[in-house]
Amino acid sequence: MNSISVFAPATVANISCGYDVLGCCLNGVGDQMNVHRSSSKNVTITKIEGAKLPFEAHKNVASVAVMAMLEQLNDPSIGIDIEIFKKIKSGSGIGSSAASSAGAVWAVNELLNRPFTANQLVQFAMEGERIASGSAHADNVAPALLGGFTLVRSYSPLDVIKLHTPPDLYFTVIHPQIEVKTEDSRRILKPSLPLKNAVTQWGNLGGFISGLYTEDYDLISRSLSDIVIEPLRAILIPKFKEVQQIALENGALGAGISGSGPSIFALSKGKATAEKVAKGMRQIYKETSIGFDVHITSVNSAGVTCI
Amino acid sequence: MNSISVFAPATVANISCGYDVLGCCLNGVGDQMNVHRSSSKNVTITKIEGAKLPFEAHKNVASVAVMAMLEQLNDPSIGIDIEIFKKIKSGSGIGSSAASSAGAVWAVNELLNRPFTANQLVQFAMEGERIASGSAHADNVAPALLGGFTLVRSYSPLDVIKLHTPPDLYFTVIHPQIEVKTEDSRRILKPSLPLKNAVTQWGNLGGFISGLYTEDYDLISRSLSDIVIEPLRAILIPKFKEVQQIALENGALGAGISGSGPSIFALSKGKATAEKVAKGMRQIYKETSIGFDVHITSVNSAGVTCI
Repeated sequence: MNSISVFAPATVANISCGYDVLGCCLNGVGDQMNVHRSSSKNVTITKIEGAKLPFEAHKNVASVAVMAMLEQLNDPSIGIDIEIFKKIKSGSGIGSSAASSAGAVWAVNELLNRPFTANQLVQFAMEGERIASGSAHADNVAPALLGGFTLVRSYSPLDVIKLHTPPDLYFTVIHPQIEVKTEDSRRILKPSLPLKNAVTQWGNLGGFISGLYTEDYDLISRSLSDIVIEPLRAILIPKFKEVQQIALENGALGAGISGSGPSIFALSKGKATAEKVAKGMRQIYKETSIGFDVHITSVNSAGVTCI
Repeated sequence: MNSISVFAPATVANISCGYDVLGCCLNGVGDQMNVHRSSSKNVTITKIEGAKLPFEAHKNVASVAVMAMLEQLNDPSIGIDIEIFKKIKSGSGIGSSAASSAGAVWAVNELLNRPFTANQLVQFAMEGERIASGSAHADNVAPALLGGFTLVRSYSPLDVIKLHTPPDLYFTVIHPQIEVKTEDSRRILKPSLPLKNAVTQWGNLGGFISGLYTEDYDLISRSLSDIVIEPLRAILIPKFKEVQQIALENGALGAGISGSGPSIFALSKGKATAEKVAKGMRQIYKETSIGFDVHITSVNSAGVTCI
């Protein structure tokens, strides 16, 4: 196989109680990437559609991730051409850069007959994240590569776990078309927190994960609470409280900030509820002058896939 | 039924990564309690063997817990006599007061034909804990009542979850006969912690809970780490580091402080390993002048039981 086309999915990180550790992969929202072996012995971005992104190999997250992977293989004969058809908007908070990094390494791994497991690919995709945001985080690339809900248990050593996905969970994600600068969403966080708040948060994280395994939607709902990060970041997102409120009123299990925003996610049991939630979210944002997209999607258990 | 004898089990709280939220119920280590309906319309402690504990109903954790329960029932005609045969040493860090509180409310609930669920009994048993330590914590009474591993997801409202128990887990618990005052073990904690440490801790808690559900003993082992509480409290326990080290050298999945100490627990896969760990622990403590007990026990999935 010398060519492959892949679907590189969007992801929701943090998921309220799981700051920096939880993520989930989405169906239907994502980029397309075409990846070819070439005779050039270089990694080259040959096409980008749908976004203004750098063509320079050391600046584009997809090529940076692939180069990290090839470096590990230590085979200088391998050349790769990458075409990116970007559909996830940059800076939306649903893992746009992670989709490119994860899609690229997954595709190249297929072309090379899978020298690495999906878990091993995470570390390479993280190098793309390092270029994108300055820190090699895994909470979007892990679910993009493994599919479903994932937990980054540890960074040192890297330890990423795929959790169980209950069958009837649906995400509704609204992306307000405003820019929240990563620096701002980081700077607004406090470097420390009260022990009692940490305990509350890890109680909720434990409840959420238990709820995933036992498919206890009520427990998932009770656990979808963030008293640490959301209270600080919510002010960067117009109408956050109203959107969260209307999602809950329409039956969502919970709602919160997707990654570092500005997208807001809601998690619901059943597609009909997710659609009701979407309607409510649209209603709130129609009253503003801000453009927005709304996605309704089930959980993508596969991660990056061959098209 | 007018009389009941119950086994009130010891429990290990915190379990490294789960400060204030995780607990587990032990087999074979616990108190006996005999509880009778009486015509007195009072809750009376009629016998205490094995420990010096108050007979006054408003000072003994067992009667305080039962009175909280009867108050909720609002039936002034009910009288209860309680005999306590204490085997768990007070201040050992394996839930001595919790065993009394949990055993008493569970027994009375049986005598009254179960007006409450085990989950509902937790709140009454917590009133015993309030008397014992000044704070109505649930991390020992919850596993004593529900059995197995439990998570206190939230205190307000109280939400206690029974987790899955893998079949082959064994505890080794060494109880050094020294007194660690609850005030000291509390005062030594810091009221806040760095966000990055909280993230590390909740990654491990998530990994531990995931490991319980998937019966992944390696993941349980990797997750049994405490970078928040243990570094502060370990200095109150002589030879803590040495005991932890020898437990790991003998094949334990992990080891840490039981509750607020001074007991130290190790968790192992298989009884043979737990016994090897016990041998190692004994070896360390034999070199000191401190008396000690060692318990080797499987996980008690039932909690308080009728004898």
